[in-house]
Amino acid sequence: MLCVNSYFNDQVKSIAFQGKTLATTVGVMDIGEFTFGTSQYEIMTIIDGELEVKLPGTQSWHTFTNGDQFEVEANSSFDVKVILQTAYHCTYQ
Amino acid sequence: MLCVNSYFNDQVKSIAFQGKTLATTVGVMDIGEFTFGTSQYEIMTIIDGELEVKLPGTQSWHTFTNGDQFEVEANSSFDVKVILQTAYHCTYQ
Repeated sequence: MLCVNSYFNDQVKSIAFQGKTLATTVGVMDIGEFTFGTSQYEIMTIIDGELEVKLPGTQSWHTFTNGDQFEVEANSSFDVKVILQTAYHCTYQ
Repeated sequence: MLCVNSYFNDQVKSIAFQGKTLATTVGVMDIGEFTFGTSQYEIMTIIDGELEVKLPGTQSWHTFTNGDQFEVEANSSFDVKVILQTAYHCTYQ
């Protein structure tokens, strides 16, 4: 059974599955600004799209696009400005 | 608004979005065997997982895993045996 989750008033949706190595989601973010909280260590890979990210403990925004990756510690949060609708892959550990 | 579609009794789910260049979906296939029909030319990229595919007009199965890609003509169909839960990216034109 594949579980779909929805966040930020349906502006972000994801599908959970067992990836080759880790619990994983693929999802899509609609254009907008969001703050995500983490409960586990996450590695986020941009599949298709473009967004700006402000990582925990930093003050600057960095642009991420197809194939780019960033990681976020557990029990943290990061800010996102989605420039183009963006599909992502996220692993949790 | 992000649209989630569900196929094969919820064993395949996808989220539609506007990719950087084309109408696109990301989705997940659960373990199982499925026959997909196409109405447009599709390029399918495996994000994370493993499946065997029998393409239209062929009799042999080929294994596809992370990063692999195949294409299918419009108004056709292809058979899939999903070995591991598999996330995919699919463009339509």
